[in-house]
Amino acid sequence: MTTAPFTVSLDLALSGTGAPPKAAYDRSLAAAAAALDWLRDQKRTGGLELLGVPSRADDLRAAARQAAALKGFATVAVLGIGGSSLGGQALTALRKAGKPVVEFHDNPDPFSWAAALKRFDLKKTHFIAISKSGGTAETLMQVLTAADALEKAGVKTLKKHFTIITEPHASPLAGFADSIGAARLDHPLGVGGRYSVLTMVGALPGLLMGLNVKQLRAGAQAALEQVLNARTPADAPAASGAALHHALAGEGRLASTVLWPYADALAVFGGWWKQLWAESLGKDGQGSTPVSVLGPVDQHSQLQMFRDGPGTALYTLVSVDTKGKGPAVPRARANRLGLQYLAGKKLGDLVDAECRATAQTLFKNGRPVRRIHLGKVDEFHLGALMMHFMLETILMGRLMGVNPFDQPGVEEGKVLARQYLAEG
Amino acid sequence: MTTAPFTVSLDLALSGTGAPPKAAYDRSLAAAAAALDWLRDQKRTGGLELLGVPSRADDLRAAARQAAALKGFATVAVLGIGGSSLGGQALTALRKAGKPVVEFHDNPDPFSWAAALKRFDLKKTHFIAISKSGGTAETLMQVLTAADALEKAGVKTLKKHFTIITEPHASPLAGFADSIGAARLDHPLGVGGRYSVLTMVGALPGLLMGLNVKQLRAGAQAALEQVLNARTPADAPAASGAALHHALAGEGRLASTVLWPYADALAVFGGWWKQLWAESLGKDGQGSTPVSVLGPVDQHSQLQMFRDGPGTALYTLVSVDTKGKGPAVPRARANRLGLQYLAGKKLGDLVDAECRATAQTLFKNGRPVRRIHLGKVDEFHLGALMMHFMLETILMGRLMGVNPFDQPGVEEGKVLARQYLAEG
Repeated sequence: MTTAPFTVSLDLALSGTGAPPKAAYDRSLAAAAAALDWLRDQKRTGGLELLGVPSRADDLRAAARQAAALKGFATVAVLGIGGSSLGGQALTALRKAGKPVVEFHDNPDPFSWAAALKRFDLKKTHFIAISKSGGTAETLMQVLTAADALEKAGVKTLKKHFTIITEPHASPLAGFADSIGAARLDHPLGVGGRYSVLTMVGALPGLLMGLNVKQLRAGAQAALEQVLNARTPADAPAASGAALHHALAGEGRLASTVLWPYADALAVFGGWWKQLWAESLGKDGQGSTPVSVLGPVDQHSQLQMFRDGPGTALYTLVSVDTKGKGPAVPRARANRLGLQYLAGKKLGDLVDAECRATAQTLFKNGRPVRRIHLGKVDEFHLGALMMHFMLETILMGRLMGVNPFDQPGVEEGKVLARQYLAEG
Repeated sequence: MTTAPFTVSLDLALSGTGAPPKAAYDRSLAAAAAALDWLRDQKRTGGLELLGVPSRADDLRAAARQAAALKGFATVAVLGIGGSSLGGQALTALRKAGKPVVEFHDNPDPFSWAAALKRFDLKKTHFIAISKSGGTAETLMQVLTAADALEKAGVKTLKKHFTIITEPHASPLAGFADSIGAARLDHPLGVGGRYSVLTMVGALPGLLMGLNVKQLRAGAQAALEQVLNARTPADAPAASGAALHHALAGEGRLASTVLWPYADALAVFGGWWKQLWAESLGKDGQGSTPVSVLGPVDQHSQLQMFRDGPGTALYTLVSVDTKGKGPAVPRARANRLGLQYLAGKKLGDLVDAECRATAQTLFKNGRPVRRIHLGKVDEFHLGALMMHFMLETILMGRLMGVNPFDQPGVEEGKVLARQYLAEG
């Protein structure tokens, strides 16, 4: 069995006044056991394509070929929205290559996009457009206006400036790719956007940023195996996490769930996770609001409310090894200023102390706290965290009795928007 | 009377199945009338220093002098955390000057800070350190390690590399400034960090980024006057907004309040607002979680939950004039791809249609929606929005019976962190 890529402690969530009743947690754990069996079945039968992604290799060869072909560009702009962008954005924390500069343009803000098209050295800019369905209006408008700008800038061969990642079937985006002869890479049919970061959707941008995508998948595989091989749900972090959430929700104490990493490298990760949790589980009148904060900085912003507010949230603090890291405070000057407590201390010592202090102060005030610790944020650990949260979300959906893979609630708005757009 | 700097509609919040009961809203509105009277008293007596900030000018002259003195630096790094940083960060949306590059370093992440100190051309870098109390551990560690790095880089005269904004009394940060002879500017004694963006705290970074800070204050003044001069609370956006929140909270339907601008220029604004709302009102077991999202992009991330989840939130959609703005989709190519509905449309047309569609789909599904519209995001309108949300927060505190100006809940964690730091 693989070594666990991170450690999880529920001590401060299952004890104290913030804990769910033991009987409630036990019931949720028992339900999680059944959900785990279902997950193992999915793995065995291949029913859930996501579970096979970490061990794929063929698509990475295609991604590597395409990444190599784009190395000469100054800028690669990734066009896509929601699950077609947030995973790649989370990977920027591990960016190593400075060239090409990889930018993510998800929001179709007219002023931002006009400024970007003006700023780009278009002859040296490549666009990777990602849309699972191939029919995403925002992304299509970016693609078509970019093509127009390229042509106006004197680019003769559009095909060199676009890579399209979409499902292998007819669609406007696929049609665009084919009409100019641009490279097409497949978005897997069986993996939804918010679960797609480990597929081509994250792999190509990741490779262009210099990431070791194999390690990203290896970490995901390790987290997956830990869950699949666990003897009990309590030994499977995604299952115990889902059970904890479920038990709190059953008590009416899960209005929100707060992800609180104490590491800049996991700041953008929160945006990816918020979509995952919200869009997967916010349905049928159920769900909880995902709140993404960052430590220590948000102690100075939201800790007051977390500690003394309504108390209907679970806090997941994620720490990395920071003790002894970073610049040290020179002793002499600190002592002269009466700052003996900081003399000789490193920034990472403070972060370490503050993370522990936040966990304790929340716990002491009846807030349940889950603690996750990983050595560092590299490809392996980030991939493991991503798989952990995807599995936890899926298992939580099973416990709640909702489908974590659909998003029926976004259709109405799309239809209305199209109607308003037509009306002008 | 000044023209209203923005328009507010509560139509989709006070009708439909998502509306609070009329009697509840009327009660909250009546309470808001009393809170407004209190606010007018504060203005008259000068009891609430914040209300006098927009009409100050003396401190802007000092800020302008200091900004001029820093023009020669390549980089100005603003060190501060929470209210000492988030307001300035919100102003970056209006950044005009490219030099000096103004960066905000709030989180004391050891890896990020080590990388920044290495990246800076230290001889051309100036540090503005902001701490109201002068005793903020995170900021002090940044200051002392920056001073160390400067000296190691051969800088002889530290005073040229630091500007300190802190209250005019003895403190470690004030002591540091005096020990090297650095410029000190005053943080007002009567304005808390999260209400300080219009003071020197936001003014100096704003001026360095090329903002018209007078216009920022003029907008704030306009929003303030609109509220103070309103004949009824219903005519005062901050009062009607507070009443709406209060009425929903009284019905147990305000687990969170969602700020949803459809403009990239207001994305960072949300971070400032979250601290304002959370730290001011999350106390005594009360409060609601501020959720900051962005349109249209978060339709593809959290709309599913907002529309179909538990339905215990108020949605404030903020739109700007986008119709007819931005690049247009060439008709021929759109038509060839079967995208007639996008042919000839501009990106801003889509944003406009999507914002209206989101408001309608939320409303139709029983979610209360407040709509705020402003012409554009410039200094005047941003200042007005900032004052609006500060006043709304203060009035909400009055309605809830909590003190919106303190943060007693953060002390315990600070004490614990210091203890853990000492223990090593």
